[in-house]
Amino acid sequence: MPRDLHQTPLFPVAFVGAGPGDPDLLTLKALRALQTADVVIHDRLISAEILALVGLQTRLRNAGKEGFGPSVTQSQINAMIVEEALSGARVVRLKSGDPAVFGRLDEELDALSQAGLDHTIVPGLTSASAAVAALGQSLTKRGRNTAVRLITGHDMQGYADHDWRALARDGEVAAIYMGKKAARFIQGRLLMHGANPGTPISIVENASRPDQRICVATLATLPAVLANANMTGPTLLIYGLAPRAAAHVADVALPDLQEMI
Amino acid sequence: MPRDLHQTPLFPVAFVGAGPGDPDLLTLKALRALQTADVVIHDRLISAEILALVGLQTRLRNAGKEGFGPSVTQSQINAMIVEEALSGARVVRLKSGDPAVFGRLDEELDALSQAGLDHTIVPGLTSASAAVAALGQSLTKRGRNTAVRLITGHDMQGYADHDWRALARDGEVAAIYMGKKAARFIQGRLLMHGANPGTPISIVENASRPDQRICVATLATLPAVLANANMTGPTLLIYGLAPRAAAHVADVALPDLQEMI
Repeated sequence: MPRDLHQTPLFPVAFVGAGPGDPDLLTLKALRALQTADVVIHDRLISAEILALVGLQTRLRNAGKEGFGPSVTQSQINAMIVEEALSGARVVRLKSGDPAVFGRLDEELDALSQAGLDHTIVPGLTSASAAVAALGQSLTKRGRNTAVRLITGHDMQGYADHDWRALARDGEVAAIYMGKKAARFIQGRLLMHGANPGTPISIVENASRPDQRICVATLATLPAVLANANMTGPTLLIYGLAPRAAAHVADVALPDLQEMI
Repeated sequence: MPRDLHQTPLFPVAFVGAGPGDPDLLTLKALRALQTADVVIHDRLISAEILALVGLQTRLRNAGKEGFGPSVTQSQINAMIVEEALSGARVVRLKSGDPAVFGRLDEELDALSQAGLDHTIVPGLTSASAAVAALGQSLTKRGRNTAVRLITGHDMQGYADHDWRALARDGEVAAIYMGKKAARFIQGRLLMHGANPGTPISIVENASRPDQRICVATLATLPAVLANANMTGPTLLIYGLAPRAAAHVADVALPDLQEMI
């Protein structure tokens, strides 16, 4: 192990990225934070394999849902973190992927600032990195794209609007988080702005987990492939990339269906 | 340790992301790959602290520069990987950050495919994640930006062209890799497209390393701040974000200078 944990003041509150789900994709720093925390306040989507890595004395609190009660609101989560930290507990706030990428980190940082509490951020691997690794692809490639976008399928107002005209150009690559429900909206906007219906879209469910599934679609077939695949886990759409043929891709489900637009 | 390495067939060739530089930000999987490889072929920028983690029997080969000779070309690197793998060695090809983000992964994958060799990809933390963690910021934020771009300052043709009009809008966030030399070009293009000269740009050198430095600029002051800071390490520009005041930010150098445009 390269460095003593205690050289880094992680606590009172450490916001820790859990990565995409495979416990092997935790960072060493994240693992140490989990093993030295008094309490880990975690999102609903954190895998049981990762939660099993916390210290023997560490309490687990599910910020997604407590027991059989209703969903916990963001302000309740904020209060939970502040209350634990003020009680003197070493708190890990564990978030899927990277807390800085669609992680709603800022609301919780604001609550800590208001309470006068310090924090650290331990970045995590965002699921786009795991998804393209599974595809055997790069998010950027010389001669193809010098930029990649990480975008979300929906925001506070509903389906999120984006720079569709730019995304519709040949060679664009984007990782679309939470894009499953917005798929038909995204498809419509991109086609309206002139995107090629044959643009590849790889659908990666449960990236890096044992139940990872990859489905191959095009912009034309995306809604039909999604409807057919019946995915219930976290799903990422990799717009502009098909799986690399020669790569290690387990369970590539190549759909027969072709939906007419 | 959550899982036995040998459940995952990493070799003959594993492309491994080393993350931004702090060995604590290696993933568990990356560490195991380093410790079980026969040879690690690494980029010039990989820190000595990370190279110290390889197995006792592991050979190190610098793909950035061999001994005191000239730079190694991409095709020489490809040949080196193929030759090692064909000799039966378990090869780790270690790249800074995430191999899928400005990592020139595809050229090397093509070479392996042509040689009929298998590979795996172990994703790594890209430096944008470490940089914004140091700033205490998120790359995305509800109500501010529903998309973030990772872009490069230069490509094969020189300074890379981007969708400047879109980037010039208020609230846009982009992580600009290799943007130091291109800073004046980027500034000119963005101002030409109507960007606010007061748009914050955080400059993060050596993100996550002990010699990490953060400088605060605006679009107006970027070239002057860079000239004044004399940065020699890998540098990331975080366009659209200033450091969060309350966060753990060491060595924030707040420049006095204001350059007139």
